Amino acid sequence: MALQVGILGATGAVGQRFIQLLEDHPTFELAAVTASESSAGKRYGDAAKWRVNTPIPNDVAEMEVGRTDPADVPDDIDLLFSSLPSSVAAEVEPEFLEAGYVVSSNSSNDRMAPDVPLTIPEINPGHLDLIEVQRDERGWDGALVKNPNCSTITMVPTLAALDQFGLDRVHVTTLQAVSGAGYDGVTSMEIIDNAIPHIGGEEAKMESESRKLLGTFDGAELALHDAEVNASCNRIPTLDGHLESVFADLKEDASPEDVAAAMRDYPGIDLPSAPEQLIHVFEDDFRPQPRLDRERGDGMQISAGGIQATDRGVKYNCLAHNTIRGAAGASVLNGELLAEEGWI
Amino acid sequence: MALQVGILGATGAVGQRFIQLLEDHPTFELAAVTASESSAGKRYGDAAKWRVNTPIPNDVAEMEVGRTDPADVPDDIDLLFSSLPSSVAAEVEPEFLEAGYVVSSNSSNDRMAPDVPLTIPEINPGHLDLIEVQRDERGWDGALVKNPNCSTITMVPTLAALDQFGLDRVHVTTLQAVSGAGYDGVTSMEIIDNAIPHIGGEEAKMESESRKLLGTFDGAELALHDAEVNASCNRIPTLDGHLESVFADLKEDASPEDVAAAMRDYPGIDLPSAPEQLIHVFEDDFRPQPRLDRERGDGMQISAGGIQATDRGVKYNCLAHNTIRGAAGASVLNGELLAEEGWI
Amino acid sequence: MALQVGILGATGAVGQRFIQLLEDHPTFELAAVTASESSAGKRYGDAAKWRVNTPIPNDVAEMEVGRTDPADVPDDIDLLFSSLPSSVAAEVEPEFLEAGYVVSSNSSNDRMAPDVPLTIPEINPGHLDLIEVQRDERGWDGALVKNPNCSTITMVPTLAALDQFGLDRVHVTTLQAVSGAGYDGVTSMEIIDNAIPHIGGEEAKMESESRKLLGTFDGAELALHDAEVNASCNRIPTLDGHLESVFADLKEDASPEDVAAAMRDYPGIDLPSAPEQLIHVFEDDFRPQPRLDRERGDGMQISAGGIQATDRGVKYNCLAHNTIRGAAGASVLNGELLAEEGWI
Amino acid sequence: MALQVGILGATGAVGQRFIQLLEDHPTFELAAVTASESSAGKRYGDAAKWRVNTPIPNDVAEMEVGRTDPADVPDDIDLLFSSLPSSVAAEVEPEFLEAGYVVSSNSSNDRMAPDVPLTIPEINPGHLDLIEVQRDERGWDGALVKNPNCSTITMVPTLAALDQFGLDRVHVTTLQAVSGAGYDGVTSMEIIDNAIPHIGGEEAKMESESRKLLGTFDGAELALHDAEVNASCNRIPTLDGHLESVFADLKEDASPEDVAAAMRDYPGIDLPSAPEQLIHVFEDDFRPQPRLDRERGDGMQISAGGIQATDRGVKYNCLAHNTIRGAAGASVLNGELLAEEGWI
Repeated sequence: MALQVGILGATGAVGQRFIQLLEDHPTFELAAVTASESSAGKRYGDAAKWRVNTPIPNDVAEMEVGRTDPADVPDDIDLLFSSLPSSVAAEVEPEFLEAGYVVSSNSSNDRMAPDVPLTIPEINPGHLDLIEVQRDERGWDGALVKNPNCSTITMVPTLAALDQFGLDRVHVTTLQAVSGAGYDGVTSMEIIDNAIPHIGGEEAKMESESRKLLGTFDGAELALHDAEVNASCNRIPTLDGHLESVFADLKEDASPEDVAAAMRDYPGIDLPSAPEQLIHVFEDDFRPQPRLDRERGDGMQISAGGIQATDRGVKYNCLAHNTIRGAAGASVLNGELLAEEGWI
Repeated sequence: MALQVGILGATGAVGQRFIQLLEDHPTFELAAVTASESSAGKRYGDAAKWRVNTPIPNDVAEMEVGRTDPADVPDDIDLLFSSLPSSVAAEVEPEFLEAGYVVSSNSSNDRMAPDVPLTIPEINPGHLDLIEVQRDERGWDGALVKNPNCSTITMVPTLAALDQFGLDRVHVTTLQAVSGAGYDGVTSMEIIDNAIPHIGGEEAKMESESRKLLGTFDGAELALHDAEVNASCNRIPTLDGHLESVFADLKEDASPEDVAAAMRDYPGIDLPSAPEQLIHVFEDDFRPQPRLDRERGDGMQISAGGIQATDRGVKYNCLAHNTIRGAAGASVLNGELLAEEGWI
Repeated sequence: MALQVGILGATGAVGQRFIQLLEDHPTFELAAVTASESSAGKRYGDAAKWRVNTPIPNDVAEMEVGRTDPADVPDDIDLLFSSLPSSVAAEVEPEFLEAGYVVSSNSSNDRMAPDVPLTIPEINPGHLDLIEVQRDERGWDGALVKNPNCSTITMVPTLAALDQFGLDRVHVTTLQAVSGAGYDGVTSMEIIDNAIPHIGGEEAKMESESRKLLGTFDGAELALHDAEVNASCNRIPTLDGHLESVFADLKEDASPEDVAAAMRDYPGIDLPSAPEQLIHVFEDDFRPQPRLDRERGDGMQISAGGIQATDRGVKYNCLAHNTIRGAAGASVLNGELLAEEGWI
Repeated sequence: MALQVGILGATGAVGQRFIQLLEDHPTFELAAVTASESSAGKRYGDAAKWRVNTPIPNDVAEMEVGRTDPADVPDDIDLLFSSLPSSVAAEVEPEFLEAGYVVSSNSSNDRMAPDVPLTIPEINPGHLDLIEVQRDERGWDGALVKNPNCSTITMVPTLAALDQFGLDRVHVTTLQAVSGAGYDGVTSMEIIDNAIPHIGGEEAKMESESRKLLGTFDGAELALHDAEVNASCNRIPTLDGHLESVFADLKEDASPEDVAAAMRDYPGIDLPSAPEQLIHVFEDDFRPQPRLDRERGDGMQISAGGIQATDRGVKYNCLAHNTIRGAAGASVLNGELLAEEGWI
């Protein structure tokens, strides 16, 4: 039987992606959408300025938008996805958790909180058990799980694959798509024939979130991975797909072939939205490219390529679809893990 | 009195930039242009598909294009600039040197040869004395000086400024403009809404040339700098201006303020095409940006910004105009140094 | 039972689109691919530089590329698609026709020949009977049918819908995607932050082909439509999808609502690759847009919008996918019509 | 002696262009800048987010921003330029006129008012005498002159040149740059790999303003030109420079050569910001192009090309820099005409 799900902040860019990804979902059935006060009470089709490249599902267009308030969300909702602005989420998510809802959130608040699991199902599913700690500490009936930032999620699967050779130090530079800033985030005057060498807060997210994702949880406490991670973030004129150049120092010897094999063989997970293979490794040095490769695995597969030896490890490029694997798809996958593991 | 100069390979993209930069030059007077067999004998205005954004100078349009052969170049030429394809240059440049010409070349052949000075006048003018070694070893009457690759020249001035704190290890990722590949080098189908994570041979050039530029010449032999340099090169949809993200490990402590000061105060040089200040440092983390900053100092100034501390040094961004400071302008500046130092 | 089809000029951009469109075709089975001498004898996967955004079908990758010569194509091929360069096609297509092959060609040669049907199946299927005239005059056993140029096919369905109000005079300006010039046709240096106000030969094609498509065939001779058509063609920085601004003078009164209804209700055709509705009409003046609307109907539907009254008729915008509806898809649809009408 | 000028709405995109154009102006001296309440009282350098590609003049950076209110502007200002949003201008400009100021305004309000001169100095300088009518009717001591919309001004000089052959009917389609919508007007998600077939209100402006500009003023009343003008407006991914495809029906015979000569020979005007030649006509059908030609005549020259005969006249392309000749530069030129004619 289908699980009833809702979306907090359903009218925005990520909210629309949630609706698209849930349209034919095998186990989740969309039953509630919320937005800000000004949209509440409206037909979703009227409240949202639909911009996704597939038509708005008819039944969703007819749904009434509720307020983003536990009182306005049906009690029988099994799972809520959150794509609220982080400042709003920081206020509202705790109210939903107190009210007993389980929330899979893409918002950036609380990602580094010691009792909030930050998970990529293929990488650290065991961190989900932090929910026990969370419930103990916060006294919530519900549960909050977060997925990482889009730029973090693009590289962490490749770093996890490398960690069998002792991940020591990472230097990563990103070439990020404009959709990462939201529909209105980057004006055309800013980015045509240009690039912007800074994205506010992004580097700190990559440096901290990656160490949490690769960290170890002993049932009581989560220890960050001890690798040193240095990030530099850039915006370029691409629509979707974050490309990243990674240099990784390794404690053990590993040839480019070893590294390619480790990435290709990194185990996937058996969940509806997960790609069959987590990481596709290209032989062709000119790949991955954002426009050609962002849709692999319905936007959920990570791509890597250009693996070469350096003095102390390897360098390579990786890519993921920032609004699917890097946002809405990440939350949906976490929701599927919550269901699989019996949390909902 | 003006020095007579010529351009080998004058019809191509870099050749056209040479013509533009020489148009109102205070000491160089363009007296000869050469091109491939198929253009020889034609009026320059007919032979070249002019694409620079200033009009073709009338007197140059009327010049007759010569063959790229010492026999076809007037004897009283004081200096030749070369923007030949490197495979052609590897064959032809030695013929000109044997014939006694002084050549300031942008072509990539022989840049790492131990007896060929690879110079940026502000950084390593003393390397010019390698010409003595060159003449001894090769028996040439002429002299050959090279300027580095456009992606190398963008970062090396900043690394030179950092070296007072003991440059130890560098990780650099480039976001390079399409003009770097020549007018027809990157098709629109390849790069619109896209990025390409590889540029053939570029990473090796950055890794080796930078160590030669920062190396020391004792009058007999040139020792490469011992810093470890790791590069990853990307093409993005910008027209001009290479942007680079640099992580530099330093042996000594240096705050971002120290680094900014070292860059700002790095001495310039008193040559006609040199910018007053070699490196402009932005306070604004969102700068430098290719479209906004590539024309600084008539395309000859380096820009830097976003300087931040890392665990073992600093990270920052830098930018230069790839076809001016990174190509034709670099050769012209080397020519001016040759004149200043009395080699011509 | 499936019909055996082949592709002449299978390695190019349009040839690759043919392969993509034929991959799961219900009635056509790809049995032969040809290319130029230099590719003949190779595995298709090695001969073609695959650039379409879906993977190359395995069985096609393994096919051996034949020479573009009747002697090299199996006799039992029912239908050949041609995407040869028009200069090559002008020489080679007649050889295939003499040899008895039926050819559905996207090449621009002979489109205006009085005995060659130029067809869009939804618009002028009856013109196919010109094949009888063609066989009489040329003595061919085969049959040659052409589809129009991509910029022509984008507007003609809308003009056909308007013709019930007496199409009198047309002024059309195109905003064409770079893919229309082939993969290497437009360099990035030409088109980023730019537009090009001319496409060689394109305006003449639109002006003549549209009058032939809308003309009448009495069984013996084809009379061009007497509307006056004026075209101005521009290239802009979009990847796929030609957008066109049309002004149409009409002999009879027609409100924008009448025109919208005429377009929406224009009959489609029951063929495998035909869209259910030929023309989608947007209410929103800001549509159609190339990136958002080019994929409608799997790239085979025409979009229109912004219909407004003028002093003597209407103005509106229309859009189609130039390499699907405007090239390979057009030829496939003509092939389906040939099969339906019993010519193969 | 220099005339003292001020700018109403000085912090916006057009306001910044005014400052850039006035920097080295031979007769105007910038003495006052105003902006909205929130910027009033601040240093201009702090109030404006400077985005023009030349540095902000030091003295302007230090000026104090005043409120946009006659009481806040020095009495001895000779001329005010206005780049206020049209809704604000509609309210505020009359207050300045009542207070006796002379205003050269780029705002779109009142452009079609029968007693407000809408002028391009080279085209209809005599319309300036409408100021007498204006003063009579409104009782203002000041004077208000408007310049047309950027898309109008791009084509009207060419139409004026054609009018010697009896301009009868015009169909124009625009390919407009994103800067026309202001710095934040078009998001990158809207326009990368795309085009937008509608710009609110733009077509009506082109259709009416052009007939006023080409109309005749008998000293008492202004009669619109009787040509029929039909416009279709599109936004494309270029930064600056509007390109337009024009079809013009003419009452008299005129060959493309006649038309080219008429454009080339159309008289300029002797004012500081006017280009030497009003219209540059290209022989090359592939010109004008926005990126290559928008800066001609410091952004004040109109370019045309691709002139060809049609059944009833000619077709051609034209181009102008939309934020210089099409906005700030247009107002400055009108200001120079006001000075020349003795209105200030």
